[in-house]
Amino acid sequence: MPDKIADQVFKALDNFDVELPSWGFADTGTRFGKFFQAAAASTVEEKFHDAGLVHKLTGCCPSVAVHVLWDFKPGQSPKEVAKLARKQGVRVGSINPNVFQDQVYKFGSFCSPNPKARKAALDHTLDCVKIGKESGSNLLSMWLADGTNYPGQDSIYRRKKDLESALAKISSTMKKQWPGATMLVEYKPFEPAFYHTDIADWGMAAAFARAAGKNAKVLVDTGHHLPGCNIEHIVAFLLSEGLLGGFHFNDRKYADDDLTLGSIDPYAVFRIFDQIVQFTFETGKKPAIAYMVDQSHNLKPKLEAMVQTVDEAQKLFARAHLVDRKALAMAQKSMDIVAAERILRDAFETDVRGLLAEWRLTHDLPVDPLAELRSSGVIAKLGKDRAAARKARGEVQASSYA
Amino acid sequence: MPDKIADQVFKALDNFDVELPSWGFADTGTRFGKFFQAAAASTVEEKFHDAGLVHKLTGCCPSVAVHVLWDFKPGQSPKEVAKLARKQGVRVGSINPNVFQDQVYKFGSFCSPNPKARKAALDHTLDCVKIGKESGSNLLSMWLADGTNYPGQDSIYRRKKDLESALAKISSTMKKQWPGATMLVEYKPFEPAFYHTDIADWGMAAAFARAAGKNAKVLVDTGHHLPGCNIEHIVAFLLSEGLLGGFHFNDRKYADDDLTLGSIDPYAVFRIFDQIVQFTFETGKKPAIAYMVDQSHNLKPKLEAMVQTVDEAQKLFARAHLVDRKALAMAQKSMDIVAAERILRDAFETDVRGLLAEWRLTHDLPVDPLAELRSSGVIAKLGKDRAAARKARGEVQASSYA
Amino acid sequence: MPDKIADQVFKALDNFDVELPSWGFADTGTRFGKFFQAAAASTVEEKFHDAGLVHKLTGCCPSVAVHVLWDFKPGQSPKEVAKLARKQGVRVGSINPNVFQDQVYKFGSFCSPNPKARKAALDHTLDCVKIGKESGSNLLSMWLADGTNYPGQDSIYRRKKDLESALAKISSTMKKQWPGATMLVEYKPFEPAFYHTDIADWGMAAAFARAAGKNAKVLVDTGHHLPGCNIEHIVAFLLSEGLLGGFHFNDRKYADDDLTLGSIDPYAVFRIFDQIVQFTFETGKKPAIAYMVDQSHNLKPKLEAMVQTVDEAQKLFARAHLVDRKALAMAQKSMDIVAAERILRDAFETDVRGLLAEWRLTHDLPVDPLAELRSSGVIAKLGKDRAAARKARGEVQASSYA
Amino acid sequence: MPDKIADQVFKALDNFDVELPSWGFADTGTRFGKFFQAAAASTVEEKFHDAGLVHKLTGCCPSVAVHVLWDFKPGQSPKEVAKLARKQGVRVGSINPNVFQDQVYKFGSFCSPNPKARKAALDHTLDCVKIGKESGSNLLSMWLADGTNYPGQDSIYRRKKDLESALAKISSTMKKQWPGATMLVEYKPFEPAFYHTDIADWGMAAAFARAAGKNAKVLVDTGHHLPGCNIEHIVAFLLSEGLLGGFHFNDRKYADDDLTLGSIDPYAVFRIFDQIVQFTFETGKKPAIAYMVDQSHNLKPKLEAMVQTVDEAQKLFARAHLVDRKALAMAQKSMDIVAAERILRDAFETDVRGLLAEWRLTHDLPVDPLAELRSSGVIAKLGKDRAAARKARGEVQASSYA
Repeated sequence: MPDKIADQVFKALDNFDVELPSWGFADTGTRFGKFFQAAAASTVEEKFHDAGLVHKLTGCCPSVAVHVLWDFKPGQSPKEVAKLARKQGVRVGSINPNVFQDQVYKFGSFCSPNPKARKAALDHTLDCVKIGKESGSNLLSMWLADGTNYPGQDSIYRRKKDLESALAKISSTMKKQWPGATMLVEYKPFEPAFYHTDIADWGMAAAFARAAGKNAKVLVDTGHHLPGCNIEHIVAFLLSEGLLGGFHFNDRKYADDDLTLGSIDPYAVFRIFDQIVQFTFETGKKPAIAYMVDQSHNLKPKLEAMVQTVDEAQKLFARAHLVDRKALAMAQKSMDIVAAERILRDAFETDVRGLLAEWRLTHDLPVDPLAELRSSGVIAKLGKDRAAARKARGEVQASSYA
Repeated sequence: MPDKIADQVFKALDNFDVELPSWGFADTGTRFGKFFQAAAASTVEEKFHDAGLVHKLTGCCPSVAVHVLWDFKPGQSPKEVAKLARKQGVRVGSINPNVFQDQVYKFGSFCSPNPKARKAALDHTLDCVKIGKESGSNLLSMWLADGTNYPGQDSIYRRKKDLESALAKISSTMKKQWPGATMLVEYKPFEPAFYHTDIADWGMAAAFARAAGKNAKVLVDTGHHLPGCNIEHIVAFLLSEGLLGGFHFNDRKYADDDLTLGSIDPYAVFRIFDQIVQFTFETGKKPAIAYMVDQSHNLKPKLEAMVQTVDEAQKLFARAHLVDRKALAMAQKSMDIVAAERILRDAFETDVRGLLAEWRLTHDLPVDPLAELRSSGVIAKLGKDRAAARKARGEVQASSYA
Repeated sequence: MPDKIADQVFKALDNFDVELPSWGFADTGTRFGKFFQAAAASTVEEKFHDAGLVHKLTGCCPSVAVHVLWDFKPGQSPKEVAKLARKQGVRVGSINPNVFQDQVYKFGSFCSPNPKARKAALDHTLDCVKIGKESGSNLLSMWLADGTNYPGQDSIYRRKKDLESALAKISSTMKKQWPGATMLVEYKPFEPAFYHTDIADWGMAAAFARAAGKNAKVLVDTGHHLPGCNIEHIVAFLLSEGLLGGFHFNDRKYADDDLTLGSIDPYAVFRIFDQIVQFTFETGKKPAIAYMVDQSHNLKPKLEAMVQTVDEAQKLFARAHLVDRKALAMAQKSMDIVAAERILRDAFETDVRGLLAEWRLTHDLPVDPLAELRSSGVIAKLGKDRAAARKARGEVQASSYA
Repeated sequence: MPDKIADQVFKALDNFDVELPSWGFADTGTRFGKFFQAAAASTVEEKFHDAGLVHKLTGCCPSVAVHVLWDFKPGQSPKEVAKLARKQGVRVGSINPNVFQDQVYKFGSFCSPNPKARKAALDHTLDCVKIGKESGSNLLSMWLADGTNYPGQDSIYRRKKDLESALAKISSTMKKQWPGATMLVEYKPFEPAFYHTDIADWGMAAAFARAAGKNAKVLVDTGHHLPGCNIEHIVAFLLSEGLLGGFHFNDRKYADDDLTLGSIDPYAVFRIFDQIVQFTFETGKKPAIAYMVDQSHNLKPKLEAMVQTVDEAQKLFARAHLVDRKALAMAQKSMDIVAAERILRDAFETDVRGLLAEWRLTHDLPVDPLAELRSSGVIAKLGKDRAAARKARGEVQASSYA
């Protein structure tokens, strides 16, 4: 590989950060139950510790997405939580309100026919705005579980209006109290709602974001699409409309399967990065994009899964920078499909593991972060310590389907 | 059924027109070949004749969508074509440019990297604007086959820009030359393009329509969605945004299967009508919606399939007017899912064949248009006549996969 | 409707029983949490009570599927449990081993690489065989959560062999210890496994059933198919191969959504019943088919959802008996697609609510079981009593995603 | 890469042949029309020429699948056709009856309610058996377009029985007249039939193959599955049942899109090869598998697309031989998901282009067959010659949707 290209890739990697989710280190599962891991994190300190460890190993995960309900104790000062993060070498990243777990949200949050639910959701989210500001974050991630399970269950029109009002209120509050911060609006076609989801696709998320205000953008979760959906097309469309805010990274084969990024279809992830690089190539613009992981592992050791995801993201991101964009433009212009495709594929098929190892060496990072993690024995040690701590706290790890 | 409700349904039916597609009477097939029908229409006169016959039988199909390439001979005056339509008791409906069949469109039309293709598409469509105006239509239906088959084949960004320019040009020309007319922008996730389609979903169609101008709206083809997509939600969303322009009616189980409306999932079609009626109930607004059939039958006799589709549309449309909307609103407000669902289902499960027969009687229409058509022997007669006419013209019905 | 046909439908309904699942009355949810219902059943007595109530209201639910892990206390005599059922007017139906909830099943049950898991699964299932025999049941329902989440995770070949051995062992044990009983093998494409499921489709279930023995058949869960799958075709194929054992009834729009039967696509359910009736019409055979509900409601009141499901099953089953099968055969033979389809649709569109009401009257059943349930106030009463009982037992209803 | 592994890969490549389809060199398209290529092959000589050229460039395509209707003139001796093939350096491969193009097959072939259609299909296929024997082939590929478009259209039971009889007849005739040959039964969920396809999935194909006789096996077309289907699981299952006969290679994103192999999801194709190699590793068996291409290109130059497909197949096949199977078995046994997955991924991520170039050098083949083809100018030359030949024959390249 010519030095010039390697340099380009190195520079790209220098600017490529991936945010980790605090909940990705905790015990999660499927509706059929959870398989508990001794080393799973329970407290926010433990979650920051684990995120900090991944950051130490990979050098590109300086921030941690937090779920306010799970990570902030009632009354706890956001500054204190921010301090706990810094202690582990990371900082508080995107703020995720939780408007789906409480029983009041049975029929939705901002869209619920229950005014109490709507109020609870708004109050909680406005609290999150304060928390975001005080903890030094600049992102509010809005994922709603709102939807219905049956035709006729509720008025889609009333729900849409109520959601628009709420998002407008949140956006305007943010403008005043949390200037510079961005509200990310996430979409999902189904689950946990099984007939209709109030923000079902990117088009709805974009409409809600536009209606809310200029500080609102769309969040693309790579697992939240119907079968066959061309995600990179959506990414390109959103970029072109100035509406792409960020990503939740994971992979899937069927539904929202929450697998490690690129584990099922790595070429598809590569094509997303490709559209991002291509956008800058064609327009000269460098949009701010929040790259975030959203994965809840039931089987893989959580720390391993996170390191693997970050490593995979770096590899695919690096490959997207190997595309010979001028040659590609020429081939496209001359309608030479085979040549154009091959230019893309040549980049994808290049083995970048050596290149990435070099980049890591120049940054005093372990050449193979996953191998480093596995040989360190840290997961076993954490398992022992945390099992003991849980025991001391009188906690039992249990879940049941019915 | 109380008289008041029957009256309501009758009034609704009085205002419910369904446009037929001229190409729905011609021989079409799959890529594996066509199964030819003796009675298939070849000329525009024959197509209008067939549409006129369906209108005579059903009383609700006064207009015919035309495909300019197939229905207008070069140099033929649109007024002459409009006259041919009137002669058969129908009028020219939506104008459909054809920017996919000519060899120049190999890599797309408005989105092609080939400037000749882009120019040809624009010229043809601007011709269609003239034709539309002169033939007394007020709709331009834009369906593009544009897309790519392989990752990297073309720049999604360049294609999007070129399409935006073209649509803006068409829209502004329409404003001047064809005021009052609407441009409908159709979307489709795949086929004939198999990697990306330039207008892939409703969100993209809406963005293109908004960018084009106020005379542009979105056209929903019921067969153009990914598996599982909640179409009635999209319909409601578009209505709420003031962007729903019309429908192409058909049904599907897998892809764009072009089956008769409601033949696979009648409840889903009912739910689309339900959202439309509900919109008026909640907002008092009565948006102009063009209900059009788009079906290409390979097996069913074309005339029968059309009558069946129209009959089915009327039945499902009538049922949507049986929903007790006040009771539904109450049940929704009190979060009584089971009651709300049941109100919807009660309407769907009501057998409206008798009611529809009554409506037809009051309009001097055959009580069972399909039975009337079948017992008339007209298809056999047309088959004989048209076979002879084809022979006289020296035409052979032939197609081959490879 | 001619009396002869009504008689036929009545006879069909007389022989149409639907088994209810004990877990359908307990609190269940999605991976994002559970919304608890005060009236949810906790104990096996409460579950039998609720099933008994549905049976009293509908007259066609004499048996209850039990989940051994949840419904039988360790050491509890199956006869005692059978007695509890009888006390509520029902009997123990299919026996469902639970080989997915215990932590030992993290990597599968019969297919796990862990010999302890395989042994635990076999031991538990052989226990279930005893329980089945002693409780008077004649069905063993085998649903496995076995599968993998990642390519390479395990050997598909080794897993298949181990599963074959286990099923053969269970089948032969049943032949000896529980003669006359049937083992039902269920399939599912995904969830909770997200890369591969060891029994992914009907073809695999059929292969495992054939390899196990003649007392093994296939169980079709209506929610366990990939998008677009033609379920009635599978049902017909299995019937024709002598391999259809029974159903788990529910509906879905996206994945295994566990909605009430026919709530999303009632025509599809009708077509399943149609194939069953058609099979008897064409072959004269009346195969034993176990109709069972498998639904876990998170939003609808559980008792209401069950009554609604049974009512819907009866309506669609009745309609399938209205098809004029001789006329249908004639139309099919003469390749008259439109006539054939219409015969089927005429049956589906017939409003059978009146007919069903009559049938209920002749059986001293409430004409509208759902209305009866709702007006009885029993759910509110049960809610009060069970809330108090839970409190007395010191139970808290709680769940969390992370 | 250690020499031992390179040797293994070389040996594997030596034994890896890919059959090309004659129709892959002819003009094909979508139902919306065909985009004609000057260099498209029209005659069987031209098709063999093109296949021969691909074989010269890649060294692994010694045989050509033929479509009897298109490639054999009525009365033409199969030996003569076989000679034409040999002249171009290839031989006649699998024999493909065409029982879908003729008008008699409107309602199916072996499954048609029309006895004439059933007879025509059987006669044609028995002719194919003779042709197969005489042309030196040993494969009969049965792909049927049989199915229905509407619920109720035909009896699924009658169709199944008629198909079973026909396949049994063909199988027994083959045993006598064409011993050693294999009948491959292909499946497809939909298209051109849109409600049900008589051989819809691998389970049905396997049932038909088993019922037909021991010389019948299943043919897996990589584009013939519902969304999300785990194809490599099916491949493994069929291998384990001794029923895998061969493949039709192509790729798809949505339906049966007929794109070049691996162009959309290369990792999925790799996983298919991985299961095949793994099967031999675990059982020691080396099943005979026919690797065949089935692609109909509308946009890519046909010769380029074929070379690209073969090159891609070789790359992915080679990678599947790089998996460290002993280490994988160890990781699987110890339930180390992350290690097991990584072993697979390491093989997939290895850039094998250099290795493949070496293998080609040792076989006196061009190092980069696609580049060689493109630089040779042969496609342009063929285009000129064939355009002239078509003109001389008075042929016009034309197609139309309606």
